[in-house]
Amino acid sequence: MTPPRILITPGEPAGIGPDVVIQAAQQNWPAELIALTDPTVLAARAQAIGLPLKIIECDLADAQRTAHKAGSLRVHPLPFIEPVIAGQLNTAHAKTLLQALTLAADTCRAQAADALVTGPVHKGIINEAGIRFTGHTEFLAENCSVAQTVMLFVIDDIKAALATTHIPLKDVSAAITLEKLTTVLTIMHHDLKKYFGIQSPRILVAGLNPHAGENGHMGQEELTVIQPALDLLRTNGIHTDGPLPADTIFTPAILQSGDAVLGMYHDQILPVIKQMGFDRAVNMTLGLPFLRTSVDHGTALSLAGKGGANAGSLIAAIKLAISIQPSSND
Amino acid sequence: MTPPRILITPGEPAGIGPDVVIQAAQQNWPAELIALTDPTVLAARAQAIGLPLKIIECDLADAQRTAHKAGSLRVHPLPFIEPVIAGQLNTAHAKTLLQALTLAADTCRAQAADALVTGPVHKGIINEAGIRFTGHTEFLAENCSVAQTVMLFVIDDIKAALATTHIPLKDVSAAITLEKLTTVLTIMHHDLKKYFGIQSPRILVAGLNPHAGENGHMGQEELTVIQPALDLLRTNGIHTDGPLPADTIFTPAILQSGDAVLGMYHDQILPVIKQMGFDRAVNMTLGLPFLRTSVDHGTALSLAGKGGANAGSLIAAIKLAISIQPSSND
Repeated sequence: MTPPRILITPGEPAGIGPDVVIQAAQQNWPAELIALTDPTVLAARAQAIGLPLKIIECDLADAQRTAHKAGSLRVHPLPFIEPVIAGQLNTAHAKTLLQALTLAADTCRAQAADALVTGPVHKGIINEAGIRFTGHTEFLAENCSVAQTVMLFVIDDIKAALATTHIPLKDVSAAITLEKLTTVLTIMHHDLKKYFGIQSPRILVAGLNPHAGENGHMGQEELTVIQPALDLLRTNGIHTDGPLPADTIFTPAILQSGDAVLGMYHDQILPVIKQMGFDRAVNMTLGLPFLRTSVDHGTALSLAGKGGANAGSLIAAIKLAISIQPSSND
Repeated sequence: MTPPRILITPGEPAGIGPDVVIQAAQQNWPAELIALTDPTVLAARAQAIGLPLKIIECDLADAQRTAHKAGSLRVHPLPFIEPVIAGQLNTAHAKTLLQALTLAADTCRAQAADALVTGPVHKGIINEAGIRFTGHTEFLAENCSVAQTVMLFVIDDIKAALATTHIPLKDVSAAITLEKLTTVLTIMHHDLKKYFGIQSPRILVAGLNPHAGENGHMGQEELTVIQPALDLLRTNGIHTDGPLPADTIFTPAILQSGDAVLGMYHDQILPVIKQMGFDRAVNMTLGLPFLRTSVDHGTALSLAGKGGANAGSLIAAIKLAISIQPSSND
């Protein structure tokens, strides 16, 4: 069997992205891993953290695929225009790392690779470089001309997605619309089938308000927006339970009754996921034409090049990407 | 040493409150436990769930205190005016169960008991009985003429409190004021010293917005309200860290850097606490003139009288009440 080809963008070169890529490369993988970055940065960083790394320069146009061998790494070279110093952000690197992302997305869309795994970027420095950038997810959605994507977090066998992501808390209520919920849940339903082979997914939908509003006693959105959306989706064959109180949705009895959770906003879900296991959580993007997983942490600039970075999330993201076999009828 | 006197209100008699009280009574305790309720309800429920229970009727005026013996229970009798049927709510019970709560609070305030441990009540049926009731915490605050209390959850050695509790999500931003935060954090600081003996508590304060607003990029309240409140408190000798991103505040490295967490709203904190251990979490009220702990679950009407209720939260609430020795200089 030909191993799948997984593209990896290490992200911000001054952060721990290169470190964790090098750490993840220290084991065999039943897939070809190709990093899209500057090979000199990887070589220097490997030396800094004391790990062996045999860099194999390659081209994405090469159709042959070879399973990853511990201590090596295939690299499609994309040199930075200024030297990279661990821990020091530099606006000069922004364009190159976004080129890597664009090339990786284009390659996946063209089906010349099977998945994209992304390391952490630093939004601030990209914006300082004069490039509007709100996040990987939004960047990839634009690259693929997709209007709505869904951020799904996977930890062990738990899957939890967000209806809204990086917006101020006071704007969340207005952002939870019938259209938003039906779009997000339709994407979830579709991609839970496509990526996880769940034939008839049941999605546990959290309410927006404490205790899911207690029948309108603590907020109206469950009655005016969420329940109507779930009713509408039911007529389309999309099965949900909810709106459910968010505070008990992650208790074992309730979790086991569904295939995935949909939370209404960032801090209703992420604190739980990161408490469960900061180094095992994977961020996955639904709604794209290809499979993308990502680390669930930031650039940790102060740890770069020092050998103390935790590669758990990247390793989990690669494992998840390899384990997923999109159903062929999609 | 005289054992402390702990008063227990089982709460809604048709729910699992009586069941879990009877279950908790099946072990020895280094404290006197006195339930304020109808002894006939306890006797019938003990028979229904097949547990022994020797009921010892007593009076709160009795100054003598005796440590609890497994299989027995001291009861200060407060008979319901209509028969109690497990699983069936009845407005006729509301007045009696609130009398129990008032008597317990009065007794604790008069220092004739050392703590109050409350079982779950059903807010809806109390309101249907024509009595305005928004929750135990508010009821006890009114009984004690206290303007602000703080809901603190304790699980193992983790403590997390809420700045706002049972309000619609869209009203949270407006409820987070300088006055609210300084009052809540002053109460936390005071009661962490009083009840937990932490001489100089350090409180980890979550932001309101995702990633604590990322310096105003995702919401302004961190800059306009939370940070000014923390700065003001610092001049009063109250130490905090924050505003911190809520999504990582419960990861081990950050948790260990403080003594307690303050979240801005219900679903930023409760999903994490209940995921950590639904049956070990205790709800504690800060700001009252006496110690009150509570179960962290509802009435579970369908389980009442069937023997399947989980007494873990009540047992944890009793243990916490016994373990706490308010500092004498308060």
